Amino acid sequence: MKTLNVGLVGSGFMGRAHAQAFRAVGGLFDLPLAPVLDILADRDEETARASAAALGFRRHTGDWRRLVEDPAVDVVAVTTPNRLHAPIALAAIAAGKHVYCEKPLATTLADARAMTAAAEARGVVTLVGFNYLKNPMIALAREIVQGGEIGEVTGFRGIHAEDFMADPDQPYGWRCEPDNAGGALADIGSHIIAMARHLAGEITAVSGRLHTVHGSRPAAPGSTERKSVTVDDQAHALVEFAGGATGSLTASWIAQGRKMQLAFELTGTRGSIAFTQERFNELRLYTAGGRRGREGYTLIAAGPEHGDYGAFCPAPGHQIGFNDLKAIEVKALVEAIAGTSAAGPDFREACEVERVAEAIHRSHRDRCWIDVRSV
Amino acid sequence: MKTLNVGLVGSGFMGRAHAQAFRAVGGLFDLPLAPVLDILADRDEETARASAAALGFRRHTGDWRRLVEDPAVDVVAVTTPNRLHAPIALAAIAAGKHVYCEKPLATTLADARAMTAAAEARGVVTLVGFNYLKNPMIALAREIVQGGEIGEVTGFRGIHAEDFMADPDQPYGWRCEPDNAGGALADIGSHIIAMARHLAGEITAVSGRLHTVHGSRPAAPGSTERKSVTVDDQAHALVEFAGGATGSLTASWIAQGRKMQLAFELTGTRGSIAFTQERFNELRLYTAGGRRGREGYTLIAAGPEHGDYGAFCPAPGHQIGFNDLKAIEVKALVEAIAGTSAAGPDFREACEVERVAEAIHRSHRDRCWIDVRSV
Amino acid sequence: MKTLNVGLVGSGFMGRAHAQAFRAVGGLFDLPLAPVLDILADRDEETARASAAALGFRRHTGDWRRLVEDPAVDVVAVTTPNRLHAPIALAAIAAGKHVYCEKPLATTLADARAMTAAAEARGVVTLVGFNYLKNPMIALAREIVQGGEIGEVTGFRGIHAEDFMADPDQPYGWRCEPDNAGGALADIGSHIIAMARHLAGEITAVSGRLHTVHGSRPAAPGSTERKSVTVDDQAHALVEFAGGATGSLTASWIAQGRKMQLAFELTGTRGSIAFTQERFNELRLYTAGGRRGREGYTLIAAGPEHGDYGAFCPAPGHQIGFNDLKAIEVKALVEAIAGTSAAGPDFREACEVERVAEAIHRSHRDRCWIDVRSV
Amino acid sequence: MKTLNVGLVGSGFMGRAHAQAFRAVGGLFDLPLAPVLDILADRDEETARASAAALGFRRHTGDWRRLVEDPAVDVVAVTTPNRLHAPIALAAIAAGKHVYCEKPLATTLADARAMTAAAEARGVVTLVGFNYLKNPMIALAREIVQGGEIGEVTGFRGIHAEDFMADPDQPYGWRCEPDNAGGALADIGSHIIAMARHLAGEITAVSGRLHTVHGSRPAAPGSTERKSVTVDDQAHALVEFAGGATGSLTASWIAQGRKMQLAFELTGTRGSIAFTQERFNELRLYTAGGRRGREGYTLIAAGPEHGDYGAFCPAPGHQIGFNDLKAIEVKALVEAIAGTSAAGPDFREACEVERVAEAIHRSHRDRCWIDVRSV
Ligand SMILES: NC(=O)C1=CN([C@@H]2O[C@H](COP(=O)(O)OP(=O)(O)OC[C@H]3O[C@@H](n4cnc5c(N)ncnc54)[C@H](O)[C@@H]3O)[C@@H](O)[C@H]2O)C=CC1
Ligand SMILES: NC(=O)C1=CN([C@@H]2O[C@H](COP(=O)(O)OP(=O)(O)OC[C@H]3O[C@@H](n4cnc5c(N)ncnc54)[C@H](O)[C@@H]3O)[C@@H](O)[C@H]2O)C=CC1
Ligand SMILES: NC(=O)C1=CN([C@@H]2O[C@H](COP(=O)(O)OP(=O)(O)OC[C@H]3O[C@@H](n4cnc5c(N)ncnc54)[C@H](O)[C@@H]3O)[C@@H](O)[C@H]2O)C=CC1
Ligand SMILES: NC(=O)C1=CN([C@@H]2O[C@H](COP(=O)(O)OP(=O)(O)OC[C@H]3O[C@@H](n4cnc5c(N)ncnc54)[C@H](O)[C@@H]3O)[C@@H](O)[C@H]2O)C=CC1
Repeated sequence: MKTLNVGLVGSGFMGRAHAQAFRAVGGLFDLPLAPVLDILADRDEETARASAAALGFRRHTGDWRRLVEDPAVDVVAVTTPNRLHAPIALAAIAAGKHVYCEKPLATTLADARAMTAAAEARGVVTLVGFNYLKNPMIALAREIVQGGEIGEVTGFRGIHAEDFMADPDQPYGWRCEPDNAGGALADIGSHIIAMARHLAGEITAVSGRLHTVHGSRPAAPGSTERKSVTVDDQAHALVEFAGGATGSLTASWIAQGRKMQLAFELTGTRGSIAFTQERFNELRLYTAGGRRGREGYTLIAAGPEHGDYGAFCPAPGHQIGFNDLKAIEVKALVEAIAGTSAAGPDFREACEVERVAEAIHRSHRDRCWIDVRSV
Repeated sequence: MKTLNVGLVGSGFMGRAHAQAFRAVGGLFDLPLAPVLDILADRDEETARASAAALGFRRHTGDWRRLVEDPAVDVVAVTTPNRLHAPIALAAIAAGKHVYCEKPLATTLADARAMTAAAEARGVVTLVGFNYLKNPMIALAREIVQGGEIGEVTGFRGIHAEDFMADPDQPYGWRCEPDNAGGALADIGSHIIAMARHLAGEITAVSGRLHTVHGSRPAAPGSTERKSVTVDDQAHALVEFAGGATGSLTASWIAQGRKMQLAFELTGTRGSIAFTQERFNELRLYTAGGRRGREGYTLIAAGPEHGDYGAFCPAPGHQIGFNDLKAIEVKALVEAIAGTSAAGPDFREACEVERVAEAIHRSHRDRCWIDVRSV
Repeated sequence: MKTLNVGLVGSGFMGRAHAQAFRAVGGLFDLPLAPVLDILADRDEETARASAAALGFRRHTGDWRRLVEDPAVDVVAVTTPNRLHAPIALAAIAAGKHVYCEKPLATTLADARAMTAAAEARGVVTLVGFNYLKNPMIALAREIVQGGEIGEVTGFRGIHAEDFMADPDQPYGWRCEPDNAGGALADIGSHIIAMARHLAGEITAVSGRLHTVHGSRPAAPGSTERKSVTVDDQAHALVEFAGGATGSLTASWIAQGRKMQLAFELTGTRGSIAFTQERFNELRLYTAGGRRGREGYTLIAAGPEHGDYGAFCPAPGHQIGFNDLKAIEVKALVEAIAGTSAAGPDFREACEVERVAEAIHRSHRDRCWIDVRSV
Repeated sequence: MKTLNVGLVGSGFMGRAHAQAFRAVGGLFDLPLAPVLDILADRDEETARASAAALGFRRHTGDWRRLVEDPAVDVVAVTTPNRLHAPIALAAIAAGKHVYCEKPLATTLADARAMTAAAEARGVVTLVGFNYLKNPMIALAREIVQGGEIGEVTGFRGIHAEDFMADPDQPYGWRCEPDNAGGALADIGSHIIAMARHLAGEITAVSGRLHTVHGSRPAAPGSTERKSVTVDDQAHALVEFAGGATGSLTASWIAQGRKMQLAFELTGTRGSIAFTQERFNELRLYTAGGRRGREGYTLIAAGPEHGDYGAFCPAPGHQIGFNDLKAIEVKALVEAIAGTSAAGPDFREACEVERVAEAIHRSHRDRCWIDVRSV
């Protein structure tokens, strides 16, 4: 089988997840191309060497530029802090590589647009790591919505809340830097914006409110010096959809007790859906008009009849894990590169997510609604 | 024991609930006054007669004016459609009666203010039917918040969603009339505003969005004629609290599948609380700083150590019901009338709830934030 | 309306619940007879006096014999410790009174049989306080089972677990006395046996295991002296049903963390039901053969279309409480006395419950299966 | 790094899961040996060839004997129907290979004992696929129990219920063959027996009841001929533990609506644990003696502080999937082979599980308790 040489930049939380996905995907799906863990770049030679060994890459480099220019590399996976997404992706595109980039796409909307334009001009395949969209239960939700099973969508109430920054003594890091797309909205809010668009369609207007709760944090782990923080710890927005629905979105990384509350309630004229990533192998579906006295939310457990679940297990209820979502994402990437199906969410879609986030920022500043299309 | 003669106006959903509460409360609590089901008024003689018989009232009348002016009546309970709250309450106050009024207090903020002023001038006791605040689990939540157990409140995300108007063929009724405080926000949104204030304090600014999903409904049950509807089917708002917290509120009566989702997540700097009226004998509490690997939300089941639960049952986990909330409410009323404790939420508090709702309406109209204190 | 004079014996946990139910029931249901809280008996004059005042009884007595013989009394409610059920009930029957008796019916199967025979011979109405059967959700469960909605019943796995005796320093009390029907099986296990019979039919054979975990307890509250305990803290049984189903039952009063886990999973050939009293306004229903990919347990919330829920509230999801179950029980009692419907569970049924418990005891002793009909 | 050549027999449900685990494990854990997908055997050449290609094995064979005798093979993974476990494992042991065998270990207790004896005599490493024990939440549960956090274990109530055989028209297959360890008890009941032993210790006596609900099934998919079935569709047992606890176990493959209910409630003198594989990234823990009014079950979400979770994800709440349990199992195997830690559950432990199952069978036959040690 033809191989697909993978160049991975970064080997932190997401770098490892990408590596595992590329490693696993071939045994799960019948793919048109066989991914090869070719080369890993990290910020220095030693980090890159150690990570390449641990994750099973053949080669490594301390300079991502070497990786993106390497003729052997077919696809570049970008898992660095956000600030580097644009330079790496643009260089990779310039070198004619396909790009698999982590979210959020860029640190400014201008960058996101430039990246999208470049990729489309060059004709490379792009995919952005909104892995939660790959969940078989979300595939089911989309099928339900698009098949009209719950009528017209009237409302979407979404949240992505975690608590990894809840402690005011959680040190300052790249996620706190304004020019690194810092803040809860960009970091995890992007997931719930992407989810809202995926299921309820285009967001046309927003009213937003950002909120910095902890104004300073230790400059570094263990440091007594405190560094001031200006990015949002939580963000709230009202949203209007092109299809007429209305709703609200929340992002928070200080939500004590929440580890992965990417959750929503989607209401339609004839039913509704409720979901939380905290139990992501489940979807709750309510359909109006059932037998009187027997109506209620049905708790659907993920099984082979839903999305790509069957690639992992022939039996229902056994459950997939977070890393499996990445494997489904990588499968979509590989098929898009091979041309057998369209990947997504691509740079253009991720750019739209950025646009909504940018509109929320402007709305917060101006204390009024912002038309997303005007941004 | 001294008695307390009750005059009840209205005998629909809430009228019955009031009657049951007055009937039951004496056996549950050791009260300073013994409520007597004295007289019931409804829109006509026959309705009043039948309801008085069914609910156990001694007397009845087809004219509420007779009731409020009756010298024997000590307290007037108002459970009519909203438009009548102001005239009845004002007349009762003028006659020197205490007033127990259903929510929302009035159909205009001006009315609500006049009612509050009149009651305070006359020195009568008032209580408004925000019964969900009487839940022992909400008493617990308030104790947790006010005791600082979860630090400073940083966020409040609330919703009151039901689906009794979800069907577009659900007929037009008094809840659809603009001059009857129609609409989801006034009808059930008032509960979540009251809850937010009860737990997280004063709401100082709002950005709101109202949404009429079903623009017309059958003019009457069984009618083929359709009447146009202008009130909101759902409403969303961003909110800022005096204490610095931020959040969002949602009200919807078209939330397919939801029967009683009065729910919130309240986040503090050192913990959080999650609650839904769908399981209102439970409260979820997360407190930061627990033993590593053992942390998580604790599901607290209502028991005698919480609020007024013990009046109903000496054993935990047996659960109270909706009507029991009304009994607790009536107990607060009776004690306030007897002067042994302060009632609440009184007209002044209910007036503040109205103010927030009014601010949301204006914000919707003007597409910008509204300072609640300016309303 | 004709009245029904109630004589209540005992005013502890259950005595109060009976009193509240008799007090409330007339406002909830359209009854053929109006219950009157006539006379209350307790172990001494002073206790009886105080309780009668608190609960709203007209008269009181320190001697239950006076109560059962009082010509004015129509129905005797027995809420004493178990040992007194038989003497009081037998005396009441002899005096021609209807009897509403708390569970378990008696302390020996012989007594239970004698009570049943006496009541049937005398033709009085009897009802035993298996209040959990009165839940609208259990009415629904029964309707589902009997209507064949889930096919033939194949399995029943039930438990009643609480933790009020979990602490080894919880003092000895009447529930620890062997001749007072002490032990978890008799005390709360009777509820799950009754439920199993109510839903899955006659239990024909059992294999049981009793288990005394805490062999001694403080002789009295605060006492340092310890008294040895011989009754079971937990009991387990395998069961066979006449209809062919098999399953297991568990009773425990040392189940740390459980406050009211009266729960079961009932499996049929074409569906299943899951229930827990911890959330007793909910029933989970699974019906096989639904649309592929949309199947799952449906969470049904109690509403007016289920059993007697509508007497409490016209809107679904608002929930009833434990005391409301007693009100439904009393409604059944009053109707049975008036002859408008058959009460149940009556002494005969409660006697069958005792028989199963006795069979479990014998099976435990003999370490083999016991045919219930042989007991 | 030294490699570990894997020979896999079978490539159905479990064969694929093994393959994925061997493929993934090296990128997840820092292992002493590098597993190599060397050779795959299946029932015929063609099946083996296709599976080897799909799963990434270098070689294949239609005859498992060739695989077990192949000098290059270090470890043999057995994922065939149960009847073949013994011959394959014994041949592999004879050839000095380590053996990783699926559950149940064998189809007779005699075989299981012979396999255990052979493995121990030959000194090879063995591991049996009770993958649910590998869950980080079960590691946590064991830590809690063994650390005495919930006192002495007093009760264990476990179940493994699924519904893949609930339809009477589900065709006859190898799981229905008595000489293939057919039946719910052997097939999935073995998991809950293993879990009970893992957490609550040795099971010393049982009273069992097997139940064949569907006495015949289509002889083959699509066949109109029906074949009679004698194995159990569900099994119930009372159990006594060496440590003094008592409880019950249930196994059912006809539990309509259940996909993966491997669940238990474990009670101790000072707390309790509740778990279900349906939400296997969660564990509920109750510890007695907490602050009054704040007690309840704490819902612990899997995170890096629990068992091997951190190998998959550095952030809590992201969740692992079923296949990840197999990866943890394979890690244990590899480490045991390298001698860096003890594997488990090994053949000896799996043999004890068989012994309990056999005792349940005998108890069913004899209608009395069976001392497991006598079996
Ligand atoms: N899709 C999802 O669910 C998630 C996405 N992310 C996204 O993934 C990206 C990475 O986040 P994490 O993995 O959490 O961060 P991390 O801090 O764990 O890892 C970042 C990696 O980039 C490397 N790196 C830094 N500077 C570099 C340079 N100049 N050249 C090469 N490598 C360099 C670091 O050494 C490290 O290996 C971010 O864009 C983040 O938003 C993160 C977590 C979850
Ligand atoms: N606290 C809570 O949870 C709830 C509060 N409510 C509030 O209770 C009030 C009543 O609502 P429902 O009981 O649901 O309405 P409903 O329509 O069931 O009952 C209204 C009652 O008022 C009577 N009425 C109408 N016009 C009258 C007149 N001129 N004179 C005397 N009686 C008259 C009607 O005949 C009827 O008995 C409303 O303000 C509503 O917002 C309603 C439901 C729940
Ligand atoms: N249906 C249910 O869910 C429940 C039923 N029960 C049953 O109710 C009965 C009473 O239990 P509790 O109320 O919990 O007990 P309790 O101990 O709280 O109350 C017993 C009452 O009987 C009175 N009493 C004792 N000796 C007496 C005598 N010689 N004459 C008159 N009164 C006497 C006591 O003073 C007390 O008022 C028991 O049979 C119990 O099994 C108890 C709790 C729940
Ligand atoms: N640990 C767990 O959670 C689970 C364990 N199992 C166990 O795994 C084993 C296999 O079960 P499944 O994978 O579900 O069965 P399956 O029927 O899906 O796969 C069995 C495999 O064995 C192969 N096979 C049959 N005869 C063979 C022969 N003579 N030589 C070589 N290969 C042969 C078949 O072709 C097939 O590839 C059983 O022991 C079962 O109890 C099964 C499912 C879950």
